[in-house]
Amino acid sequence: MRATTFGESHGVVVGVVVDGVPAGLRLEAEVIQADLDRRRPGRGRFSSPRQEPDAVQILSGVAGGRTLGSPIALMVHNRDARSGDYANLAEVFRPGHADYGYFHKYGLPPQPGGGRASGRETLARVAAGAVCRALLARAGVAVTAYTVQVGPARAARVDPEFARDDPLRCADPAAAGAMAQAVQTAMAEGDSLGGVVEVVASGVPAGLGDPVFAKLDAVLAGAWMSIGGVKGVEIGAGFAVAGRRGSQNNDQMDAEGFVTNHAGGILGGISTGQEIVARLAVKPTPSVSRPQQSQDLWGRPRQIEIKGRHDPCLCPRVAPVAEAMTLLVLADAWLAQRALAGGEPLNLD
Amino acid sequence: MRATTFGESHGVVVGVVVDGVPAGLRLEAEVIQADLDRRRPGRGRFSSPRQEPDAVQILSGVAGGRTLGSPIALMVHNRDARSGDYANLAEVFRPGHADYGYFHKYGLPPQPGGGRASGRETLARVAAGAVCRALLARAGVAVTAYTVQVGPARAARVDPEFARDDPLRCADPAAAGAMAQAVQTAMAEGDSLGGVVEVVASGVPAGLGDPVFAKLDAVLAGAWMSIGGVKGVEIGAGFAVAGRRGSQNNDQMDAEGFVTNHAGGILGGISTGQEIVARLAVKPTPSVSRPQQSQDLWGRPRQIEIKGRHDPCLCPRVAPVAEAMTLLVLADAWLAQRALAGGEPLNLD
Amino acid sequence: MRATTFGESHGVVVGVVVDGVPAGLRLEAEVIQADLDRRRPGRGRFSSPRQEPDAVQILSGVAGGRTLGSPIALMVHNRDARSGDYANLAEVFRPGHADYGYFHKYGLPPQPGGGRASGRETLARVAAGAVCRALLARAGVAVTAYTVQVGPARAARVDPEFARDDPLRCADPAAAGAMAQAVQTAMAEGDSLGGVVEVVASGVPAGLGDPVFAKLDAVLAGAWMSIGGVKGVEIGAGFAVAGRRGSQNNDQMDAEGFVTNHAGGILGGISTGQEIVARLAVKPTPSVSRPQQSQDLWGRPRQIEIKGRHDPCLCPRVAPVAEAMTLLVLADAWLAQRALAGGEPLNLD
Amino acid sequence: MRATTFGESHGVVVGVVVDGVPAGLRLEAEVIQADLDRRRPGRGRFSSPRQEPDAVQILSGVAGGRTLGSPIALMVHNRDARSGDYANLAEVFRPGHADYGYFHKYGLPPQPGGGRASGRETLARVAAGAVCRALLARAGVAVTAYTVQVGPARAARVDPEFARDDPLRCADPAAAGAMAQAVQTAMAEGDSLGGVVEVVASGVPAGLGDPVFAKLDAVLAGAWMSIGGVKGVEIGAGFAVAGRRGSQNNDQMDAEGFVTNHAGGILGGISTGQEIVARLAVKPTPSVSRPQQSQDLWGRPRQIEIKGRHDPCLCPRVAPVAEAMTLLVLADAWLAQRALAGGEPLNLD
Repeated sequence: MRATTFGESHGVVVGVVVDGVPAGLRLEAEVIQADLDRRRPGRGRFSSPRQEPDAVQILSGVAGGRTLGSPIALMVHNRDARSGDYANLAEVFRPGHADYGYFHKYGLPPQPGGGRASGRETLARVAAGAVCRALLARAGVAVTAYTVQVGPARAARVDPEFARDDPLRCADPAAAGAMAQAVQTAMAEGDSLGGVVEVVASGVPAGLGDPVFAKLDAVLAGAWMSIGGVKGVEIGAGFAVAGRRGSQNNDQMDAEGFVTNHAGGILGGISTGQEIVARLAVKPTPSVSRPQQSQDLWGRPRQIEIKGRHDPCLCPRVAPVAEAMTLLVLADAWLAQRALAGGEPLNLD
Repeated sequence: MRATTFGESHGVVVGVVVDGVPAGLRLEAEVIQADLDRRRPGRGRFSSPRQEPDAVQILSGVAGGRTLGSPIALMVHNRDARSGDYANLAEVFRPGHADYGYFHKYGLPPQPGGGRASGRETLARVAAGAVCRALLARAGVAVTAYTVQVGPARAARVDPEFARDDPLRCADPAAAGAMAQAVQTAMAEGDSLGGVVEVVASGVPAGLGDPVFAKLDAVLAGAWMSIGGVKGVEIGAGFAVAGRRGSQNNDQMDAEGFVTNHAGGILGGISTGQEIVARLAVKPTPSVSRPQQSQDLWGRPRQIEIKGRHDPCLCPRVAPVAEAMTLLVLADAWLAQRALAGGEPLNLD
Repeated sequence: MRATTFGESHGVVVGVVVDGVPAGLRLEAEVIQADLDRRRPGRGRFSSPRQEPDAVQILSGVAGGRTLGSPIALMVHNRDARSGDYANLAEVFRPGHADYGYFHKYGLPPQPGGGRASGRETLARVAAGAVCRALLARAGVAVTAYTVQVGPARAARVDPEFARDDPLRCADPAAAGAMAQAVQTAMAEGDSLGGVVEVVASGVPAGLGDPVFAKLDAVLAGAWMSIGGVKGVEIGAGFAVAGRRGSQNNDQMDAEGFVTNHAGGILGGISTGQEIVARLAVKPTPSVSRPQQSQDLWGRPRQIEIKGRHDPCLCPRVAPVAEAMTLLVLADAWLAQRALAGGEPLNLD
Repeated sequence: MRATTFGESHGVVVGVVVDGVPAGLRLEAEVIQADLDRRRPGRGRFSSPRQEPDAVQILSGVAGGRTLGSPIALMVHNRDARSGDYANLAEVFRPGHADYGYFHKYGLPPQPGGGRASGRETLARVAAGAVCRALLARAGVAVTAYTVQVGPARAARVDPEFARDDPLRCADPAAAGAMAQAVQTAMAEGDSLGGVVEVVASGVPAGLGDPVFAKLDAVLAGAWMSIGGVKGVEIGAGFAVAGRRGSQNNDQMDAEGFVTNHAGGILGGISTGQEIVARLAVKPTPSVSRPQQSQDLWGRPRQIEIKGRHDPCLCPRVAPVAEAMTLLVLADAWLAQRALAGGEPLNLD
């Protein structure tokens, strides 16, 4: 299972080729569209007003509503690219953005809308994730992600159903108001807020993952950290383990199985059959309208004010992408384990 | 640049094949041995008393003290394997260990000493890292790691020189006593402690890394999370970004360059030329001598008491491995960027 | 450098994503189109009359006529797909085609037009090859392929310029008539002919390739054999070495360099700086209109007569694809060697 | 399934790490040793008299005679390395050898005994192949290779049992004398001979392989061409297809299945369930004792006479390596197909 993405923010399209999906799987554009719609900008009041229909096209790999076993190419057109908004940025590195590193890597000035570094590339990830979701559903695996912190406001409990319709994807009805208020305040001051997104994968069978470099948590951590704006990932108890003793942190077992899940569903890099639980630290949107100090391409100090359309908090955008990356990793690990241990032919309904 | 490791804890050897190292690089066994000695058990009072000389052998890829361009195979014999200590564990899953997942993955009972899941495999990583250290030294890149938290005790400042000789690799002379005391107390109670290790890479040129799935922080996060016992990784400000505003978190620039380094040296997945700074959450050693509840291979509840030799805190063992994984990733990224952008022939002495 | 292709014969598009191309390379659609036009069906009298404009679209990775360093996605629409012609084949395995193996691999009946197995996927290869051609031109590398045998008619000498306009891509003006005649005769009898295509790469620097599994000739052989219809590949003297003695076959050197090139430009898997010369055995087009004996999906014997549009000889179609595969392999090997040995920044005009 | 080899001819060891073998497979050193013994020099009268016991050590991945699922490291010591024989070659490129390309790739003078380019690295391949043989035996797959041509002498029929004990691995009792005579004559004149090796894989299920770049024949061709001295590979009818018509070359079917096997068991890159049959062109041993013209490291013309121990014909050495490479490719393809289509747990006896 491999996903190859392409496309720049203000280019013609964004797309992905998903290779390695077994033949015969039922797959309709609607299923992929549903996942794309959940990451779409312009849906809630805390999203940038850019209005992209983001209608997915299946270019290959599917016929008659079923996968062919060949590469599945998926594509979305960029329709609402207003590069004028970005015109004045081309000579100055935007603080908190990829511009500076890209300039040194490629020798090119910042591309309009961020080019390849724009969050718009995540569309390709979500489309690929939707394909994996369809595959993993056959194996009983489900993945969901939601917001558990925005700036100072934290969720005390988790209701994934509630998160689905909340504009910040907040999982706690009791905290949703405080989160919304925090964002409102930051927006009013031309600023943005960070947060934390939690991901849960249920139904994952025990035995997925590899023992050393490709531990399941290692591959997942790499996948999550590859999402723009994510600066930290933790699994199970995460950073809280630093203050614990072994006798507290070990998950003991009784006749029913594990009594706790401090490990977050992975031990020694291999899934244990428990829920995989992780949290992602999401930085505040770097595009803020307040004046900032930077340099231009020739190293001269410059002040920059960023106009244009920007989400005040990335969490509701990161959540569907976190789901997608989790689905991609799990689908690959599930197929790899199947190569070693065998398994039933997929029930292709 | 690729490292392929092999070996089980109580098998004959542990080893690694490092592929992709340019020819002509000066490389002596002593250099690799020096890094291995720093991860060796039995050195300090908080290390397991297992006494392994861990003398590395260069099996291939080097002649006359220089690399040949062919795969470099490195090997260490397991001399002090006392599998008797583990004999009684073979039927019961040790809490906090890989046993349960391995059993479901491979259909095999827990191997003596953890088999492939033992921390002893990290020896291969450290050996491979030492090779990369020799390569990256030519590019002016240096990597160091040290302990900044053990249980409740935290470092307030960082002195890498001090860390080098501290038994817990604590970086803060003022906190070393409290850390040692915390470990002592846990040991006396048959228990263990978690902590946090910090890694710093200096001299990394701007422009390393890829824009999407193989962002430099993504690959590093995967590499760090693949170290046994690591349950979280964060780069730069890490989880602290969740509570911040964009205007606070963005690294602004003046005429000299970046004024702050909240990003930890990586923006949009590409290195910025600043120091790369990251922290790893290390869980408390799962092997504790207190009685614990578990199951045996047939699902029956069993109580288990773990004897044998175990570190009370993994941090001083994780630090050199974190250095090694960082070196492996950076060497690979440095060579990859060289393919795109060209570069001077390596100054080969 | 990696190419990921997608698309089925009678689907919406055929496309490719080329990853790993350095930024700043001049690349216009016209350059790619030129290579595509050379493989286009419907050009000569010995090509199937299927009329596809095959106009390439650059979907990503290029802006302002230069590469961005991001993945280059290229796509061609399938416009003239008349699947009616194939309708009656869906239940019977076509002799010499992939149908039988695909059925056992994917559990699916033969797709119209061959689906993923159609020669139309080579369009994606040629497009990717054109990108590599633009890159390698900076390094002074040029690749050309032409027909040296069709059925009983063989070329005695090689004039690549002549081949460029010959309908069979025959390289020898003196043999072109006999080749054309042989094809004409076969066509008149509802049959097809095999042949041999030769590939030459000039300007390849010494030192490309790896010593063991990824020898340059090994990677090339795999790339060439992956072209549909190719049943054999040989490099330099090829199968003729079987009858030779070492003293005859070794390429000796004088003060100017190598005196002969029996090795075909590769020794021990590494390029020697001489021309790389290889030949590909191309089977006769399996789609012939004569009645053939086969089975249907349920294992019942069936007679099959294949209608539709088919090239009587695949050689003129294989030649541009052979160029493309050679270019892909050499571009990758050139970049890999650059990572090890350094090099000038690409002269970006 | 991945094999990583290491070791130089006159270094300490030659070895391989085989990754991806399922756990629980019965594997004894004797089984691997048996395959190694068949490639060993010094066995027959046409082999170089170098006497290496080549006793394999299993370093990891096996316990109690069964695989653990972890990487299997195998190693053989180099005991009889007499580098004195090669001392005088260090400054002159040996005709037909890798020396010239290596010098340009690595900037190093020729290593004693060929270093990494020596045929001794094939030992690692054969060891890895033996592991795959054990795995594929469970799937009913068997692979054998033998000599069908040496210089002017060709086999008319094939008896693999006879080949097993013939010093040239000749498969035809009636041709063995002529082959031996041809070699004898060449040896007497200080020369060597080329030949052809045939490989047959039986029991391969239909459906292995991928449709485009990783066609089963493409991967096999790459694997075979990676064997030192192989200059051509052909599958099924191979180069003979060039002279054929489609109606002759297509394999038609009756009620029992395929009537012929011109395709050599692979159509469209996917196995058909028939025998996979291929032939490899093997060049005459480049080390001949006759005087040859070459250059030294500084480009000065030099005459060279190669002393030392050399096989007069490589075919009997190539045959076991060809088996090994075939086994590696088929094992990998078999596991990959199992990931897609499922399958019984391996019958682990």
